[in-house]
Amino acid sequence: MIRVLLVHDTCLMRSVLAERLDREPDLEVVHTAWPGAAARARTARPDVCVADLDCSDSYGMAPLADLCEQAARAGTARPPRLVVLASTQRPGLLRRAAEAQAAGYVDKASTAAQLIRAIREVVAGKRFVDESLGFGFLRAAEMPLTQRELSVLALAARGASIAEIAGSLHLSRGTVRNYMAAITRKTGARNRVDAIRISQGEGWV
Amino acid sequence: MIRVLLVHDTCLMRSVLAERLDREPDLEVVHTAWPGAAARARTARPDVCVADLDCSDSYGMAPLADLCEQAARAGTARPPRLVVLASTQRPGLLRRAAEAQAAGYVDKASTAAQLIRAIREVVAGKRFVDESLGFGFLRAAEMPLTQRELSVLALAARGASIAEIAGSLHLSRGTVRNYMAAITRKTGARNRVDAIRISQGEGWV
Repeated sequence: MIRVLLVHDTCLMRSVLAERLDREPDLEVVHTAWPGAAARARTARPDVCVADLDCSDSYGMAPLADLCEQAARAGTARPPRLVVLASTQRPGLLRRAAEAQAAGYVDKASTAAQLIRAIREVVAGKRFVDESLGFGFLRAAEMPLTQRELSVLALAARGASIAEIAGSLHLSRGTVRNYMAAITRKTGARNRVDAIRISQGEGWV
Repeated sequence: MIRVLLVHDTCLMRSVLAERLDREPDLEVVHTAWPGAAARARTARPDVCVADLDCSDSYGMAPLADLCEQAARAGTARPPRLVVLASTQRPGLLRRAAEAQAAGYVDKASTAAQLIRAIREVVAGKRFVDESLGFGFLRAAEMPLTQRELSVLALAARGASIAEIAGSLHLSRGTVRNYMAAITRKTGARNRVDAIRISQGEGWV
């Protein structure tokens, strides 16, 4: 039996998906929302964590990395493999999933059958990448912003003022303004608000 | 048989949900993404449209009102009833669903069984409101912004500058600045970017 932990914030959606996976003879599924997912990973000791990337976004990316680490700490024979549900529209999230060492990438535009295939492949020690996500990975590789610019942008997106960003990152206000100007230029935005809108859409912050 | 059109942008999620609904003896389900949903409503002639509110958000609210209208124009005996999948976190979307005369409101935190109940109720001519959405409706009723402020905010959220907003709405720049200040105050935001963030989170724009 393959033990699967399904993480998605919408109960209605994850419960029907869990039910669908559970109908496979070799899968045993529990499901949870993102809050509390790491704790659930510790107790459920899954072989595979299937996690929705768009939802994880609301909590920053910490939970994604945390998920498998927590399960590994519970002392399972081997740490669970991570499969993410992703889309080409948000290359920033693909990038962060790769940083969290996800083994499987399933396009949310595909079907449950494709997800089931991915689960079996990663349990067999292989990697699984939906072909349709190729363009998303290309865009992820071309991410235009530096780590420093991302830090500035993340604070700005949460509503921090130039002064507050400067204070948080130990920079001068002028430097923060320069970063914001660079971000606006690189994202092809019209202004600061537009740069935040574009970057959030792509999943960079 | 009750003919159901399920509208949700994520193929993986809507296909498993459609499959689940289809297992009910009295339901017959077709599903589609938002783009093309109105056209699908015309050809499928559903008795009930079940639509995800969070997804509809990306396209503005036009598609929601359009959905049942298009189906009605196809000359069905009676226009289809609208059931929305909603959450308390985004009262602005509940408000817009009410404006589009939705008959059923199902909390996305509930289960498929609850959605099935809602479909049967609205077909029987009743209204259906998930109890857990009560607090969301209260917040929807307390929406702090005027229509004019919402128009200004919608443009600002799409990245328009003060000058561009002024041009679009035939207002002076000073007036647009005053509206933005009022919006920032009323939403309890720290600044313009923060006001946009908060308002989008609540689903006002």
